[in-house]
Amino acid sequence: MNDVPHPQALRWAADAQAIEILDQTRLPEHEVYLRIDTPEQMVEAIRALRVRGAPAIGVAAALLLALAAAGHLHLRRAPLLARIDETAGLLATARPTAVNLAWAVERVRHLAHALPAEMSPLELVERLRAEADAILAEDRAMCRALGEHGLTLLPKDDPLTVLTHCNAGALATAGMGTALAPVYLAHAAGRRVRVFADETRPLLQGSRITAWELQRAGIEVTVLPDNAGASLLRSERIDAVLVGADRIAANGDVANKIGTYGLAVLARRHGVPFYVFAPTSTVDPGTPDGEAIPIEQRGAAEVIRGFGRLTAPEHVAVYAPPFDVTPAALVDAIVTDRGVHRPPYDFLRGAA
Amino acid sequence: MNDVPHPQALRWAADAQAIEILDQTRLPEHEVYLRIDTPEQMVEAIRALRVRGAPAIGVAAALLLALAAAGHLHLRRAPLLARIDETAGLLATARPTAVNLAWAVERVRHLAHALPAEMSPLELVERLRAEADAILAEDRAMCRALGEHGLTLLPKDDPLTVLTHCNAGALATAGMGTALAPVYLAHAAGRRVRVFADETRPLLQGSRITAWELQRAGIEVTVLPDNAGASLLRSERIDAVLVGADRIAANGDVANKIGTYGLAVLARRHGVPFYVFAPTSTVDPGTPDGEAIPIEQRGAAEVIRGFGRLTAPEHVAVYAPPFDVTPAALVDAIVTDRGVHRPPYDFLRGAA
Repeated sequence: MNDVPHPQALRWAADAQAIEILDQTRLPEHEVYLRIDTPEQMVEAIRALRVRGAPAIGVAAALLLALAAAGHLHLRRAPLLARIDETAGLLATARPTAVNLAWAVERVRHLAHALPAEMSPLELVERLRAEADAILAEDRAMCRALGEHGLTLLPKDDPLTVLTHCNAGALATAGMGTALAPVYLAHAAGRRVRVFADETRPLLQGSRITAWELQRAGIEVTVLPDNAGASLLRSERIDAVLVGADRIAANGDVANKIGTYGLAVLARRHGVPFYVFAPTSTVDPGTPDGEAIPIEQRGAAEVIRGFGRLTAPEHVAVYAPPFDVTPAALVDAIVTDRGVHRPPYDFLRGAA
Repeated sequence: MNDVPHPQALRWAADAQAIEILDQTRLPEHEVYLRIDTPEQMVEAIRALRVRGAPAIGVAAALLLALAAAGHLHLRRAPLLARIDETAGLLATARPTAVNLAWAVERVRHLAHALPAEMSPLELVERLRAEADAILAEDRAMCRALGEHGLTLLPKDDPLTVLTHCNAGALATAGMGTALAPVYLAHAAGRRVRVFADETRPLLQGSRITAWELQRAGIEVTVLPDNAGASLLRSERIDAVLVGADRIAANGDVANKIGTYGLAVLARRHGVPFYVFAPTSTVDPGTPDGEAIPIEQRGAAEVIRGFGRLTAPEHVAVYAPPFDVTPAALVDAIVTDRGVHRPPYDFLRGAA
């Protein structure tokens, strides 16, 4: 799985006694890996968005839970399990809306309780570590599967030119990303790939993170203000728009970072295919359509003082939902680890 | 003309011995008027975008030329005219692409030469001042005419809710603005008006300038990231999108701040009328259509370090044309000081 080079959001420290997290709040200026070995440090890193992206934070929390359990080897089974439960609870609440986080933590915690009572604490801890490593490996395999399925959708000629929004790359996962996975695969195969990356206001994940990780991987990347996408789609030959997803409703409506919906409208107008990449776990069969996806509002400060300096009047009202909903009718295909799905997206109803 | 209160981009100083310019580079943090009484100061203010907007800089330069002429009253006619020519040349080149600037300066300069040779320097200087004041008054009248014509397009019920891009407001003119003129008129008439203002990356004229001037005028304003427009158009009842124009081709294609074209596509999709406001002088009958409008590229720094801090990798490629072209087919009406024009925009061919 490691034949495709890409920056890593997280990894085991060389001594395997800590997890190293690439501090994404320091990008693009500084590439700093933080050594994290306590639940409190991990919660802080997740809350402060030092590690972000649903797949990445799920993996990071699972690894930390296994690591923390190993710190309590001196305990007998009952108090050990109690400590594991406590740590799991702490980690799972770091970002309450991240379904992946709770799921990954619960998977490790549940295993601890399910293992035979006669198992030694040492063996139990080793099994938890193996489980966390499995979650990591599965996330990497998921990314690769998305990449391979995605490549079947894209033209075979060089250069391959795509437009993406926000960060659905390696730094959002433990592997080579979701929407950017086909980009990494094509690049690793020696093809010329050009990526246009929307800045993605207000938090600039596109210019700060996507541009950084692609540049770091030696892939050609061009940053554009979000409002220049329409002009780009008209003036350049763009093969496809590739985006990730935060939640996919049962009818194929897609919630993703604000700006995705507008981009889908513009892609359709210019005859450019619009593809959504996400692990199957992102599909929520319990959500019938986009209308049922709750879209929270965020603090105005990200817009008013987003760069450490006043860019709007201090007390002005702000409209800045973090997500929008792209109707399924504008999505040419949804790529999951199971394959390429075309409308109508009925498969989704039984997906999860 | 002064019954509609609005912030002023420029004005005569109280002693009439200088022009006061609102330094727009200090907005939204500081409201600072600069006292300007030399051509060199005015050139610096125009180059540094302390005063901006084609109508505003034309008026500012005309006033300064008249003022500078008054400083040479001790000269005889020939050397006085030579000084006026020299100052006019200096002012006109402050921003070579601003057609309005050259036009306004030339109007004052030309009058100086056209006045009878027997006229005293004192009277000549007074006539130049009257001419500059006429340019100012005409600009204000143009704004009011745009506002009145624009109001006929908008619904009469409260609240009136509009979306705008960049700054086509009072601070781009000597009067109450172009696209925002109907907003000021409706507000002055006691109606409730809500304005949504796109941030407008990279230079944030929307959040820094439009939001500031509307808030200062007591008009309800909400700032949104450029990429949130699609979501806004779907979730809120927006009566119209109102924008300015940098150049209008003879077929009605409109060059304006980057992002305008995408907004027009989104407005059309959501059934929201899209109106362009500009003085007749913005129409260029010599440009047959949008394809013929040259779109320059700008420096990458505005995107990479736009907020005084690195928001993209230092040497990343940037796609950031300052303008885009909205095809006439997406423009529901063009409002000029002559009236409301509907497609096909044949009137434009003989407009200027």
